[in-house]
Amino acid sequence: MTHVSIIGSGNMGQAIAGIVAKGGSTVELFNSTDKNKEVTGQLVILATPYPAYDQVLADRADQLAGKIVVDISNPLNFETFDSLVVPADGSAAAELAAQLPESKVLKAFNTNFAATIASGTVGDVPTTVLIAGDDADAKALLSGVVAAGGLKAVDAGPLKRARELEALGFLQLTLALGEKVAWTGGFALV
Amino acid sequence: MTHVSIIGSGNMGQAIAGIVAKGGSTVELFNSTDKNKEVTGQLVILATPYPAYDQVLADRADQLAGKIVVDISNPLNFETFDSLVVPADGSAAAELAAQLPESKVLKAFNTNFAATIASGTVGDVPTTVLIAGDDADAKALLSGVVAAGGLKAVDAGPLKRARELEALGFLQLTLALGEKVAWTGGFALV
Repeated sequence: MTHVSIIGSGNMGQAIAGIVAKGGSTVELFNSTDKNKEVTGQLVILATPYPAYDQVLADRADQLAGKIVVDISNPLNFETFDSLVVPADGSAAAELAAQLPESKVLKAFNTNFAATIASGTVGDVPTTVLIAGDDADAKALLSGVVAAGGLKAVDAGPLKRARELEALGFLQLTLALGEKVAWTGGFALV
Repeated sequence: MTHVSIIGSGNMGQAIAGIVAKGGSTVELFNSTDKNKEVTGQLVILATPYPAYDQVLADRADQLAGKIVVDISNPLNFETFDSLVVPADGSAAAELAAQLPESKVLKAFNTNFAATIASGTVGDVPTTVLIAGDDADAKALLSGVVAAGGLKAVDAGPLKRARELEALGFLQLTLALGEKVAWTGGFALV
């Protein structure tokens, strides 16, 4: 059993909380009024929109030291929906890892729409959570939580692959916004 | 009916030739011994490995003027399998478009493994060909050829989106090389 903290109680935070609890782990969910409540999980999932990350780090960077921190963001330019706001050769996850040198940062869930986490399927295909990171033990812990919750977990490689995961998340969002896929669908790993 | 030229007769070239013919279009397939044979299709698919593009352009750039040219490449660093060889903020398709200013360049097929083009399915899900490009008529023509051949075609946006398509193709290749997905599978669009 893992104790999990989820910062952000929107549709992604709630969907992830659902699978964590379903798998028998304990979960605490933080919303924006919980700024003074300390995170106690060994696994902390950042489920706020990307623009709120700076504030989360300002409030909690010291609390995240020594923990596994999961970045689920798609760092889109929300004015144009035509690019990411992170450097072309980097990723939100790489930026986060640089800001949290004492945490083990993973990228995960950014290629999953909330509905597919909650339902466990992308169309008729089981939902796969792609996980990138440089710490094998951290990835194994998150994979275990995901699998216990009924989803497939796949190791997508080192944290460097977050760049490709963010490109995939971005592409998938543009396809959904353009009504080429439903928010209950997207890219399924077969 | 469209007349299609495919440069490169490897497994991708052959698989694409199969769907073109299945859809009732005419197709001519060029291999490396056909250097002196002129391409006659209005739609030309570059199905050589990316490192061979320079030679194809050296041999045929003038023949490609005025035509629709489809880039199917995944421009991997084949020594490391850990990065692409194109600029981080660009794509192979963007580079090609700059080299062929009188052609209409599209990105397509790079997110499809050859087996899924030939079979028409990714696992149990119909195969989708994602097409990016800046010319709506060119995209519509290729979409028609793809759909007539029995695959789904989806407009993935402007040629700028080739960057994300190449990231997706790269990620999918690393997953297959790491035996996380089969060469008959990959990312299916649901």
